[in-house]
Amino acid sequence: MRSVSIIGYGITQFAEHWEKSFRELIAEAGTMAVQNAGLTGKDIQAIYGGCMASGRFIGQEHIGALIADQLGLNPIPATRVEAACASGGVALRNAFLAVASEAYDIVAVGGIEKMTEISVSEAAIALGGAGDQETELFHGASFPALYALMARRHMHEFGTTEEQMAMCAVKNHKNAVGNPTAQFRKEITVEDVMQSGYVASPLKLLDCSPITDGAAALILCSTEKAKKMGFSNAIEIIGSAQASDSLALTGRKSLTEMTATKVAARDAYAQTGLKPSDIDFAEVHDCFTIAEILAIEDLGFFKKGEGGKATEQGKTALNAEKTINPSGGLKAKGHAVGATGIAQVVEACMQLQGKAEGRQVKGAKIGLTHNVGGSGATCAVHIFRRVQQ
Amino acid sequence: MRSVSIIGYGITQFAEHWEKSFRELIAEAGTMAVQNAGLTGKDIQAIYGGCMASGRFIGQEHIGALIADQLGLNPIPATRVEAACASGGVALRNAFLAVASEAYDIVAVGGIEKMTEISVSEAAIALGGAGDQETELFHGASFPALYALMARRHMHEFGTTEEQMAMCAVKNHKNAVGNPTAQFRKEITVEDVMQSGYVASPLKLLDCSPITDGAAALILCSTEKAKKMGFSNAIEIIGSAQASDSLALTGRKSLTEMTATKVAARDAYAQTGLKPSDIDFAEVHDCFTIAEILAIEDLGFFKKGEGGKATEQGKTALNAEKTINPSGGLKAKGHAVGATGIAQVVEACMQLQGKAEGRQVKGAKIGLTHNVGGSGATCAVHIFRRVQQ
Repeated sequence: MRSVSIIGYGITQFAEHWEKSFRELIAEAGTMAVQNAGLTGKDIQAIYGGCMASGRFIGQEHIGALIADQLGLNPIPATRVEAACASGGVALRNAFLAVASEAYDIVAVGGIEKMTEISVSEAAIALGGAGDQETELFHGASFPALYALMARRHMHEFGTTEEQMAMCAVKNHKNAVGNPTAQFRKEITVEDVMQSGYVASPLKLLDCSPITDGAAALILCSTEKAKKMGFSNAIEIIGSAQASDSLALTGRKSLTEMTATKVAARDAYAQTGLKPSDIDFAEVHDCFTIAEILAIEDLGFFKKGEGGKATEQGKTALNAEKTINPSGGLKAKGHAVGATGIAQVVEACMQLQGKAEGRQVKGAKIGLTHNVGGSGATCAVHIFRRVQQ
Repeated sequence: MRSVSIIGYGITQFAEHWEKSFRELIAEAGTMAVQNAGLTGKDIQAIYGGCMASGRFIGQEHIGALIADQLGLNPIPATRVEAACASGGVALRNAFLAVASEAYDIVAVGGIEKMTEISVSEAAIALGGAGDQETELFHGASFPALYALMARRHMHEFGTTEEQMAMCAVKNHKNAVGNPTAQFRKEITVEDVMQSGYVASPLKLLDCSPITDGAAALILCSTEKAKKMGFSNAIEIIGSAQASDSLALTGRKSLTEMTATKVAARDAYAQTGLKPSDIDFAEVHDCFTIAEILAIEDLGFFKKGEGGKATEQGKTALNAEKTINPSGGLKAKGHAVGATGIAQVVEACMQLQGKAEGRQVKGAKIGLTHNVGGSGATCAVHIFRRVQQ
């Protein structure tokens, strides 16, 4: 396989976009990415798009073709990838393979979700399709309920507290203040989280990521071609891995670790020869605060059971021991589900190019993204570094 | 890119499976494919699954993870691909690239749809998501209506008749009699078609492919490894191409040809150095009879405008000038949308291995599959030959 790099990226504001359609959002992010790369549409040879549930959110399938059409890029191949909330990360994995295979030199990969066209209760049901419809959602186990089970078990086994979980949200809101495209750019306190209503005990409203509309896009290019074309800012994808686990929680070996994260991380680290301690920052999948704690343990940044304590000790804050979610994470940047995996990579690119301004990780050289589908049935992990000139 | 071959395949009965779930169907096809290859689950390194609209048909997304889970294959990577009715063909394209890239040696790729869990009118709306929801479906233009427009224009420009379209259905039903997994194994007459009720004039009930439940699966392997493992029956994928076009009919250059088919066919032929006349048989996407006529013209088998006449002259019958849809096609074999693109390839493998019994194309050496999404916004074309020993 040949090396693949990112030569352009774009992202829309993450928000409730009552005034913009699905089509407008993906066109905005896609055009921004092509322009950021200094290319035009005719340079793009194929498209990948991650999107979870457009059929239920906007009554539209066939999203690959829609994206190519909307960007005026017909007749190039256009493929939609779906892996629940990991749709973006898995789309990146497949776009990466398409370039690595030498089938294409330059490929665009986007992620999108327009979630506000239906009611919140309808959206909760659509999102429930990421878990096991037959054994979970049908019986009322929506996503907050599934993560609440994991949180309760983590509290039981390791003494993790609701306050420690709250501190993930507090830290991510603080980071988002520095991120102009984040949905919630305001600080909150542990007290705010603790006083917000329970959604599924022990998870409260401010432990949960929001309903979000948004899109993000990347332009991939073979590293060799990127060098020939004179890109001095390219970000190399040095690790790319994906793994699966049982769809339902009941099939898991443990409620306090995600095997898919551990396997994907193991494979991505092996590809790079790097250790968790070599990672300067990570964008992890904090759809709920407990998910961030699980992630930072399963990615090897902290020992199992110590993620809550590490958060409480400030070790995951911006420019502390291990910066986690400098963008604000799903909690504060927003979680437009199909877009999330790509938005994480946009953040990684900005950090590695030193363009993250108010949320810049100082001297960042190696970044990692971690994108989870459902309650952990899919995980994509990617590792990035700025191409050596 | 390295060469990729098919070393195993499986397919369920295509039917209205009131007694079998989505999970059972994909497990059946997947297990059959693994066994057909003489492998066990632990030999499989990644999974691709094509599925169009499971969110609306069965309330379930995250289909890649579901398939891996159902087949007991966790934690390998599992990816769902969606491209409307071309989901299967596009899943194959991506599984092919995953092996060609050298990321994996052995990959399973499946296609599935379980369409009978909701009413026919609900299914028509779900299927409408393959076209343009905003400019077509919302205004009542369901799929039969879109293809009716194409049929009417083809009749106007080239003198194609309703009887000629009917003859596609008659021929495909005849072929399906020899196919044990086909949904409709009974012959029909031109009169039967002409007397069936109009769905969208000029298309009548028997011009339309049915609602179908079914699944199909393939095992891909690098050709070199397949040879080392001693597979004497492997089928090489010598051409793999995909193209896109505008989502809505209104964006097309012409109503009587599909640009996506022409571009994908051009690329696939170029990869193989073959001409249309070198193809011994083709499985084409006859979601409606007019679609078969468009396909055999756009694939270069007959001149533009002469597809209807060629059908009337019997040139597309089994073992005539160019065998089209020996399986019975979507019309008679059935059209479980996400499964169709893979089912076509199962047929190609059986034909090239000389195992198609009552529908065998004599001396078949080269086969082609043609899988369309929506009204032509996506097309995947693959070309196959038996590996030389």
